[in-house]
Amino acid sequence: MASISQAKTVVKIGNVEVGGPRFTVMAGPCSIETEQQFQSTAKAVRSSGASVLRGGIWKMRTSKNSFQGLGSDAFEMIKKVKADTNMPLVSEVTDIRQVEEIHHLVDAYQIGARNMHNYSLLKELGRQPKPVLLKRSFSAFIDEWLKAADYVLAGGNDQVILCERGIRTFETATRNTLDLNAVVYAKKHSQLPVIVDPSHAVGISDLVPELCYASAAAGADGLIIEVHPKPSEALSDGPQALTFESFDKTMKQLEKVLHAFDKGLNKP
Amino acid sequence: MASISQAKTVVKIGNVEVGGPRFTVMAGPCSIETEQQFQSTAKAVRSSGASVLRGGIWKMRTSKNSFQGLGSDAFEMIKKVKADTNMPLVSEVTDIRQVEEIHHLVDAYQIGARNMHNYSLLKELGRQPKPVLLKRSFSAFIDEWLKAADYVLAGGNDQVILCERGIRTFETATRNTLDLNAVVYAKKHSQLPVIVDPSHAVGISDLVPELCYASAAAGADGLIIEVHPKPSEALSDGPQALTFESFDKTMKQLEKVLHAFDKGLNKP
Amino acid sequence: MASISQAKTVVKIGNVEVGGPRFTVMAGPCSIETEQQFQSTAKAVRSSGASVLRGGIWKMRTSKNSFQGLGSDAFEMIKKVKADTNMPLVSEVTDIRQVEEIHHLVDAYQIGARNMHNYSLLKELGRQPKPVLLKRSFSAFIDEWLKAADYVLAGGNDQVILCERGIRTFETATRNTLDLNAVVYAKKHSQLPVIVDPSHAVGISDLVPELCYASAAAGADGLIIEVHPKPSEALSDGPQALTFESFDKTMKQLEKVLHAFDKGLNKP
Amino acid sequence: MASISQAKTVVKIGNVEVGGPRFTVMAGPCSIETEQQFQSTAKAVRSSGASVLRGGIWKMRTSKNSFQGLGSDAFEMIKKVKADTNMPLVSEVTDIRQVEEIHHLVDAYQIGARNMHNYSLLKELGRQPKPVLLKRSFSAFIDEWLKAADYVLAGGNDQVILCERGIRTFETATRNTLDLNAVVYAKKHSQLPVIVDPSHAVGISDLVPELCYASAAAGADGLIIEVHPKPSEALSDGPQALTFESFDKTMKQLEKVLHAFDKGLNKP
Repeated sequence: MASISQAKTVVKIGNVEVGGPRFTVMAGPCSIETEQQFQSTAKAVRSSGASVLRGGIWKMRTSKNSFQGLGSDAFEMIKKVKADTNMPLVSEVTDIRQVEEIHHLVDAYQIGARNMHNYSLLKELGRQPKPVLLKRSFSAFIDEWLKAADYVLAGGNDQVILCERGIRTFETATRNTLDLNAVVYAKKHSQLPVIVDPSHAVGISDLVPELCYASAAAGADGLIIEVHPKPSEALSDGPQALTFESFDKTMKQLEKVLHAFDKGLNKP
Repeated sequence: MASISQAKTVVKIGNVEVGGPRFTVMAGPCSIETEQQFQSTAKAVRSSGASVLRGGIWKMRTSKNSFQGLGSDAFEMIKKVKADTNMPLVSEVTDIRQVEEIHHLVDAYQIGARNMHNYSLLKELGRQPKPVLLKRSFSAFIDEWLKAADYVLAGGNDQVILCERGIRTFETATRNTLDLNAVVYAKKHSQLPVIVDPSHAVGISDLVPELCYASAAAGADGLIIEVHPKPSEALSDGPQALTFESFDKTMKQLEKVLHAFDKGLNKP
Repeated sequence: MASISQAKTVVKIGNVEVGGPRFTVMAGPCSIETEQQFQSTAKAVRSSGASVLRGGIWKMRTSKNSFQGLGSDAFEMIKKVKADTNMPLVSEVTDIRQVEEIHHLVDAYQIGARNMHNYSLLKELGRQPKPVLLKRSFSAFIDEWLKAADYVLAGGNDQVILCERGIRTFETATRNTLDLNAVVYAKKHSQLPVIVDPSHAVGISDLVPELCYASAAAGADGLIIEVHPKPSEALSDGPQALTFESFDKTMKQLEKVLHAFDKGLNKP
Repeated sequence: MASISQAKTVVKIGNVEVGGPRFTVMAGPCSIETEQQFQSTAKAVRSSGASVLRGGIWKMRTSKNSFQGLGSDAFEMIKKVKADTNMPLVSEVTDIRQVEEIHHLVDAYQIGARNMHNYSLLKELGRQPKPVLLKRSFSAFIDEWLKAADYVLAGGNDQVILCERGIRTFETATRNTLDLNAVVYAKKHSQLPVIVDPSHAVGISDLVPELCYASAAAGADGLIIEVHPKPSEALSDGPQALTFESFDKTMKQLEKVLHAFDKGLNKP
């Protein structure tokens, strides 16, 4: 398991340091849908204080009939938006063959919850010179999550960020159950930075802001938040996306919470 | 289900208002063990800022061979400690016949997680002129928890506090999984105050402080925390009890978090 | 924990031996609703081969507004139906004060899933000269279930039957998840008879028959099955009740399965 | 979702028909370890009535330091054992690049529980002219499992077998919780054959036989069982493997159970 005898790891996504003294907010749409949608969201989250952009190219969907992401149609949009906003991008790879394909487009690879056990993919990312954002599977023991990180670390890539995104429990009122116990536990048992995805963890946009504050207060190193210009029209995960306005309001209160811990935000 | 059309309920435990503008910390030992243990703990938590005292008289134990609480042997200790500290007490009833027996000793009745579905007991407390602290069962849907509260409210007793104390999930690294989603959800769907018991929710004392801060940041109205003079010698739940020193440190940081929300502590 | 060094316990409900060489089927409505409903069901299940009658007097309901059972209005119906069919009755007590009240009416007390942790009630039944059917809580570890039985046994009452009735998991397609692992495990780790309630364990009447066969094949000592003259009109748990016809068909196939293990049914 | 309006699918693994009138037992070691181990196990399970051989080439292990399977070192052993026993083989692919590599060696591809959500791999297998044994993820809703099958079916490969192998719940006495509700449910909601892996579902060899009988009685179309010459020396999953002797005994009782349903075994 990732040892804690070492110093805490600081992971650099572009120029943004995750796991250092400052708190990092990553934000953007669940899926990249159109240039306009991605561009406007990037600018909005940047102006509210997010320093890393998120946006899905390929989506893991339960049904083969659901929107599967734009795939390579998103590549030009990404280039343009990154050039315009100068923000680093984290995006998910769902297939080992995508690693090379988007190498020049992303600043960090995301492993989604459903691929946390995909050890072939983890090993491949262990050989890449880019950071990895490793989401906890919604059914993984904390121990399995830390050991999954070891599959990346063993390849020589020490730039791994752990991300708690809710676990599957009996409760049905919320999409998943955010497990902040795991965040506090992982901070004490691993040298890696730990962030939280409150959007997937609860699945209801109205409840996301309070969970952002709670995550920061629990000691997380950052957040990854879904934001959409019109959540009701999103092609995926609309019910959990914040509007620009609610994101902005959330960021203002978040800074006050961080201040209580003598911390500040990584600025874009 | 407890309606939210009404104004938010403020529950008075002794002179302490739970659910109003101030945040309430309840603290004390899991079980009352000796007068010295209870007295010293009460004084310590009071001096650190707790305004309500907790302490178990009867314990629900998985094994019939485990310590079951002092029962009536605790009564004189309670009288003495309450007189000395002037703190109101919340304590659990595990049997309908205990309600009358400790009526003069407690300022609020606690329903433990394993009795949340004990509707006879809930109905009995609905007829009492004392507040009820209703813990969520570790396997209850949020909806069942809110509807359990209705069994008390229907009897005419509107002084009910909801308490999230962790749910049973597949994860074994921690005792239970603290469900802050449920706290945020309950705050939006019920008029009742909602507090958190981080001690049972995680079961590991080292992780309790961060979960206190997270609970406050999530919008809880208070906390109920286990504190013991020597956790390693406690007759029940020692691994999750804070020492006086760690409790004091936790309270100082907690006040900073509350300050970020323009809130303060109910003072003893 | 209930030791296995002793010989296997045989529990007598009226004249029916549970846990001996023969398999026991208990059947009847979830709730006693009318004399006609209870009478017709009793006769139907008896003629299909059930040897013990079930029927609820008081119901544990999530909502205070749901049907709570006939209570004492059911007493005369019970006397009449028992006299007419000569079947022993198992019925649930949900409150310690009911134990005495129905002592003359029932041949075995049932502890429902939500009261498995109600140790006061278990201790009270440990002092009674009647068998106890102890359902596993839907969130109890097997170990907690066996230790709950010890609360009864310690009072001197060794006539305890364990009943698996499904556990609460993430799955929502069925009401609960039948845990036959637990049945096989309990048979090897306890001297007590173990039966299965497939009705609550799955909650969908169409799936009940196969789960009856599976339970018998797993080595259970019996079944407790909900049957109703018109399931769609039942005041509680209609969706999981078998009709007289489907119960009869199930019993015929069940006997074939038992035959594969050189077992037969306890006959009414 | 896989529709039930169509006739039931019969899947052919080599010459063995799964999902037809006869019941299929697949057996063999968790991992192929040595030629002697694989050979002796194959012969033993064949002589006891298994008609399909199982054996892992690549293993998905939580820790990077655990035995990961022989990989290509197993290829020659497989050729030899298949030639000697004339049994078809099912083996797991954990990486899309393995599909081609073992195409000539296996008669059916297995998708393990941790890859049920690996849609790239599922799509790849949808284009292969070989059957797919699709294990349910230990955290998948039944609905997600059926929809995962659709990813294979949509590619034109209708030869899919569903396999229930236990789900992750709060219970820790057993490795997973066998969900026979799901087997009965899937049989009614899908046209595909459904089999059970009792070895992973319970993780304790002593409890496997009864769960084999229960699965057959629940209506499963077959079983996949781990067998090892010396379970205590197995490189993976030893605690759940049957010895040759216990496997043989289990098969004899299993035939009696199948007889109760007028069914017989597919013979090797």
